[in-house]
Amino acid sequence: MTSPCGNESRVLVINTGGTIGMTLHDNGYAPKANALVESLRKLPILHDELYAHQTCLYEYYQLQNTLVLPKPAAHVDLQFPRPSKLNKRIIYTILEYSPLLDSSNMTTDDWGRIGKDIEKNYENFDGFVILHGTDTMAYTASALSFMCENLGKPIVLTGSQVPIYELRNDGRDNLLGALLIAGQFVIPEVCLYFYNKLYRGNRVTKVDAGSFNAFNSPNLAPLATAEVDFKINWDTVWRANATAKFQVKTELNRNVGLLRLFPGITASTVRAFLQPPMQGVVLETYGSGNAPDNRPDLLEELSKATNSGVIIVNCTQCLRGTVSASYATGRVLMEAGLIAGGDMTPEAALSKLSYVLAKKDLTVDAQKKMMSQNLRGEMSADLEGAKLCLSDS
Amino acid sequence: MTSPCGNESRVLVINTGGTIGMTLHDNGYAPKANALVESLRKLPILHDELYAHQTCLYEYYQLQNTLVLPKPAAHVDLQFPRPSKLNKRIIYTILEYSPLLDSSNMTTDDWGRIGKDIEKNYENFDGFVILHGTDTMAYTASALSFMCENLGKPIVLTGSQVPIYELRNDGRDNLLGALLIAGQFVIPEVCLYFYNKLYRGNRVTKVDAGSFNAFNSPNLAPLATAEVDFKINWDTVWRANATAKFQVKTELNRNVGLLRLFPGITASTVRAFLQPPMQGVVLETYGSGNAPDNRPDLLEELSKATNSGVIIVNCTQCLRGTVSASYATGRVLMEAGLIAGGDMTPEAALSKLSYVLAKKDLTVDAQKKMMSQNLRGEMSADLEGAKLCLSDS
Amino acid sequence: MTSPCGNESRVLVINTGGTIGMTLHDNGYAPKANALVESLRKLPILHDELYAHQTCLYEYYQLQNTLVLPKPAAHVDLQFPRPSKLNKRIIYTILEYSPLLDSSNMTTDDWGRIGKDIEKNYENFDGFVILHGTDTMAYTASALSFMCENLGKPIVLTGSQVPIYELRNDGRDNLLGALLIAGQFVIPEVCLYFYNKLYRGNRVTKVDAGSFNAFNSPNLAPLATAEVDFKINWDTVWRANATAKFQVKTELNRNVGLLRLFPGITASTVRAFLQPPMQGVVLETYGSGNAPDNRPDLLEELSKATNSGVIIVNCTQCLRGTVSASYATGRVLMEAGLIAGGDMTPEAALSKLSYVLAKKDLTVDAQKKMMSQNLRGEMSADLEGAKLCLSDS
Amino acid sequence: MTSPCGNESRVLVINTGGTIGMTLHDNGYAPKANALVESLRKLPILHDELYAHQTCLYEYYQLQNTLVLPKPAAHVDLQFPRPSKLNKRIIYTILEYSPLLDSSNMTTDDWGRIGKDIEKNYENFDGFVILHGTDTMAYTASALSFMCENLGKPIVLTGSQVPIYELRNDGRDNLLGALLIAGQFVIPEVCLYFYNKLYRGNRVTKVDAGSFNAFNSPNLAPLATAEVDFKINWDTVWRANATAKFQVKTELNRNVGLLRLFPGITASTVRAFLQPPMQGVVLETYGSGNAPDNRPDLLEELSKATNSGVIIVNCTQCLRGTVSASYATGRVLMEAGLIAGGDMTPEAALSKLSYVLAKKDLTVDAQKKMMSQNLRGEMSADLEGAKLCLSDS
Repeated sequence: MTSPCGNESRVLVINTGGTIGMTLHDNGYAPKANALVESLRKLPILHDELYAHQTCLYEYYQLQNTLVLPKPAAHVDLQFPRPSKLNKRIIYTILEYSPLLDSSNMTTDDWGRIGKDIEKNYENFDGFVILHGTDTMAYTASALSFMCENLGKPIVLTGSQVPIYELRNDGRDNLLGALLIAGQFVIPEVCLYFYNKLYRGNRVTKVDAGSFNAFNSPNLAPLATAEVDFKINWDTVWRANATAKFQVKTELNRNVGLLRLFPGITASTVRAFLQPPMQGVVLETYGSGNAPDNRPDLLEELSKATNSGVIIVNCTQCLRGTVSASYATGRVLMEAGLIAGGDMTPEAALSKLSYVLAKKDLTVDAQKKMMSQNLRGEMSADLEGAKLCLSDS
Repeated sequence: MTSPCGNESRVLVINTGGTIGMTLHDNGYAPKANALVESLRKLPILHDELYAHQTCLYEYYQLQNTLVLPKPAAHVDLQFPRPSKLNKRIIYTILEYSPLLDSSNMTTDDWGRIGKDIEKNYENFDGFVILHGTDTMAYTASALSFMCENLGKPIVLTGSQVPIYELRNDGRDNLLGALLIAGQFVIPEVCLYFYNKLYRGNRVTKVDAGSFNAFNSPNLAPLATAEVDFKINWDTVWRANATAKFQVKTELNRNVGLLRLFPGITASTVRAFLQPPMQGVVLETYGSGNAPDNRPDLLEELSKATNSGVIIVNCTQCLRGTVSASYATGRVLMEAGLIAGGDMTPEAALSKLSYVLAKKDLTVDAQKKMMSQNLRGEMSADLEGAKLCLSDS
Repeated sequence: MTSPCGNESRVLVINTGGTIGMTLHDNGYAPKANALVESLRKLPILHDELYAHQTCLYEYYQLQNTLVLPKPAAHVDLQFPRPSKLNKRIIYTILEYSPLLDSSNMTTDDWGRIGKDIEKNYENFDGFVILHGTDTMAYTASALSFMCENLGKPIVLTGSQVPIYELRNDGRDNLLGALLIAGQFVIPEVCLYFYNKLYRGNRVTKVDAGSFNAFNSPNLAPLATAEVDFKINWDTVWRANATAKFQVKTELNRNVGLLRLFPGITASTVRAFLQPPMQGVVLETYGSGNAPDNRPDLLEELSKATNSGVIIVNCTQCLRGTVSASYATGRVLMEAGLIAGGDMTPEAALSKLSYVLAKKDLTVDAQKKMMSQNLRGEMSADLEGAKLCLSDS
Repeated sequence: MTSPCGNESRVLVINTGGTIGMTLHDNGYAPKANALVESLRKLPILHDELYAHQTCLYEYYQLQNTLVLPKPAAHVDLQFPRPSKLNKRIIYTILEYSPLLDSSNMTTDDWGRIGKDIEKNYENFDGFVILHGTDTMAYTASALSFMCENLGKPIVLTGSQVPIYELRNDGRDNLLGALLIAGQFVIPEVCLYFYNKLYRGNRVTKVDAGSFNAFNSPNLAPLATAEVDFKINWDTVWRANATAKFQVKTELNRNVGLLRLFPGITASTVRAFLQPPMQGVVLETYGSGNAPDNRPDLLEELSKATNSGVIIVNCTQCLRGTVSASYATGRVLMEAGLIAGGDMTPEAALSKLSYVLAKKDLTVDAQKKMMSQNLRGEMSADLEGAKLCLSDS
């Protein structure tokens, strides 16, 4: 599918909902159907109506929900000259969910739906932007990263802390930056773009409920920064080895959960949490993967669960850090059958469990092995090795 | 009780255990009884044997486990001249728990024991240092802050990421700094000192499992920094209004728990978690206190629990942020009877519940009210007001 | 002067030039006269044409260069309800310099001109925004802070790293934020607003040539942050004691300079720099105010200059830090007649010299004394005292 | 030269002076000859007297100024097992300068002397630690990086903000960390180690006069961090292409200087600064390399100087940033014959000039070319290229 005007790039924007498109409604914010595209059409920063008319954009695409970014000035950059490749027009089409979803309500079904929509439109677009509420964006980004196998195009999740209809808001800049990345760069990852930084999707966590700078990827440097210039850390960008065909695995196991240790947690609480139909649990432990070792009652509940086939992944409740299989003090949990989660975020570990447990052709042991392998850059593969490159002097 | 040598300050060090005093044992670290005091005695940085002999320190205190810090040079500071008050000798006595405790194993009973030991020794010392494992130090610091009513002396928790017996370690500097603060400054709070920063104890969380810079108080600036000089932020230091007598409340309710929301959490998981004897729960919600509002099954479980007298506090799972009672989108949880946790950490909210629920003379409503009040600087009292000081132009 | 529509606030925007208003011209950026106001009029974020017509804005003010910000939604804030006072309409009038100035070319004459324009319009506006190139914005902000005596209204300098005509730029948000602060808050200071932070003008320095986050005030926390909400640090906001009449002192001494020490600097270089007509010099020394003490030739040149009436201020070349009069190792410079600059930035010290040396009715000794006093919050007044609040235990 | 005990590594510590070894003297700090080695011998952290005796260390090396670090525990690391290679004993010999030097007094002669001492001892040691005052350490580190050609062993500069004799000080940890890096890792660079970070020497600048965290390398990430573990960024470590013989070029040109632009700088000041014998100047310009373009008098002075053979390098006065040759707005300075300094620090540019101008067999043009080339990792070689790796979609 070629655009009539040549030098263009196409991006599909899937608007699932979230603060970015909310409007005032009584005394609270609420999403409003079909409002976003109308609103963007009036913002000269995000739509060039003149170009749309000159190129018969609407007729060509037969879509009223297709917009076009203004031309980046064919400029001498203040710092560095940009090559013409960066001057492609970005044509973007908005696919809006009905009803719009509050991210607090998102479930594995919604992750699956987003995945299917990407798969269906994969060939027709150069990149994808997912508009999403911030509250569970880290979970969705993680899930999509596993679901998308052999991904060759950028999928960028974004949203905002303040609606795009407000006077001061972070929605304009977040959407604009996400579109430019999805349309201009070959970063074949599920990413999250927020406040001028691009993160790997399965590495992020929401760290601030009240700031524009809401996300962070505590165990991995950002993939890119976008201030005066886009600076891509190409060394960090993930490139799968396989050249196999892109596909989205939308089967996900719902029987997964997240349990945080706390002083005085009782065996009965743990037993209740681990009871069927639970099949996979992320246990958020202390420090580098520690749990009480003087609590046979607790450890027995964990052992019983792992023996009966529940996969339990040991992740730290610290923002930064690693749970290593070789670390002695977490031994009691290893003996209870837990898997070391490395430096995965709880969000990534949970959605990885959901993805891996849905692979019904695998044995539990094969699933466990998969959980401890680096599939999409969600964990630092060979951390010990990397840290101990030594001189041989 | 006056020292024979005049210008001295006395600090009680309660060594509960933790990495700071661990030694190598087979192929792992383990605590070793009575090793710490012997080891410190040989470190000229942390003990001045000559002074101890000259002043007959051991005879006077009749304690072999009493040490004395070297004299801070009566110097012209590189930056600022220090007054002589800072040149007091700090005499410290180590009270070691037997057996030494791994912080992963700490429970409300252990919090109570520490509290009792402080109360028993309160009059004889100018300040207190608690050596503690890092894994649950934030929980213990929070608990002690509530248990200690009308505190007038500094209680400083510290520990280390690497044992003090290792070549490179953070234990020496952490212990030295904690002793200097406890012995020199009137900061009548339960604090946590780590990597040259002093934090309010009920504001901290462990943010890094593998760095010396392991703690942070995300919603409050540090109380002090200790680099070339000690810089105390006196405006931030908490001063209780009451001048009532110091006492430690060691009755704590054990039936409290911490539950983190995640996409797809089931009503049965929530019900199981909230079942008796659970009496108080910190629910870690999304963003500014959000939960699914399209899940009547879930909300019903929460309502049933609050109706039956369980107190549920709404805290954010974000590192930074506030859950405000006036925020519209968390309304469904308010309607389900939850209490807004403001900017409390989950650690503070959990131990506050443990403290408040033990006040058996209070009605549930009075306990709920207490949970939403600022008792020890653990929450920003009047956040809205502070942010909306406006011009009257 | 009352607006016809009541609840309005008026801001004067003085556009001196700079990147924010530049357009592409051949193969470089250049300022373009009268372009900014035309451009802003087309940006719905920064101008509400409908309101302008409904209120006959242009007729009323008889000014084509007057614009009006859209109404901030009368909303329930996502976090906190905003009182109606924050919902004032901000009417802003653009006064554009002709020709537009590159900030690299700014001199004391231009500082004086800006000062005069503020003085002339002081009574008719509630606040002032100065658009300025980033390169010397810290110098101009410092100079204006001294020139404006008994200031009672906000003066906010801003600009951008990327022109407002570019697709991605920081100009829109910087201008919008500066207008909202100047029109809504009573912060009677010369400030600098950049990348969602408001700084005291005489504390800033440009720290990054290639990032949106270009400024910092290394020795003072920001006055405000503007992310989801405006958070004003009211404790830090400067309030002059005097209630005297506002006036702008536009006489400035041009014979001032900035000299950075470096290893191997020769006496002849110093002598050449200090030769008449030089009357005031900021010497950027090492660390806490150090200079070679084994260089009698160098020290003699400094002594000769101070003896002949040149005022030399000792500031550190470190980004953060203080040069204290009581610090022993800088003694040779004190003996050579230099004044300790405390924690002033070089930019503040230079413009303060320019301001103080123009007070011809003062003796050199009175001028020296003034240089070491805190006039506008440019230095931490009583740093030693503040740091040594001690317990009297 | 093999140690009698086998598994050892030898480090030469050159103590040039500085705060780290100062003692109180009257009412100020002053260096004291021969005090450091005696003091270290008594610190069990930094010397293992038992091992020294058992191995007849003093007899073997016939040196009273040779010490040995304690054995790093053959431990299971808390996080990762360390291989035995990291357990080498580090034997270090202290070469103390007499008199000890205040870093404010350091000149090119002193740089040369340090260089010669390294060259003389190069074969006998595995690594080098230079103790140095912090004030000009960034200048010395930069100079040594250029002087040392074909370096194959680590040279680590360090020092402290507080003397090692003080109760709380950063000297112990800085010295210990520097010794461990110099003795254990093959990082063939001139580095600077401070507050648990290892920086490339020619990238650092002193950013804080009053904090332990005194240094930063604003345009390059640290080479290593040393907290719970040493984490080396091996991708960043510089490796020269040449395998030629190590040599130290101690001829340095003294006629170099540093001039910072400021608003209102006069042509006569510039002329005076550039007068003979000045041969090389670092001009600290605004932002990305800007200077007034409406000042023909100023530009003429610069042109006259470059025409007469003075090499002038254009560096930014911002902490972070780059002066690019392709950047349009710095054009007037390029036309005046200045060389773009890229992202070099002023300290690196100054000492590079000193090194390059001493190569008398080179023409001025060859010297200019050398100044704009990346010799030792002091500038980001091909910044534009690196930032514009684009997709070819």
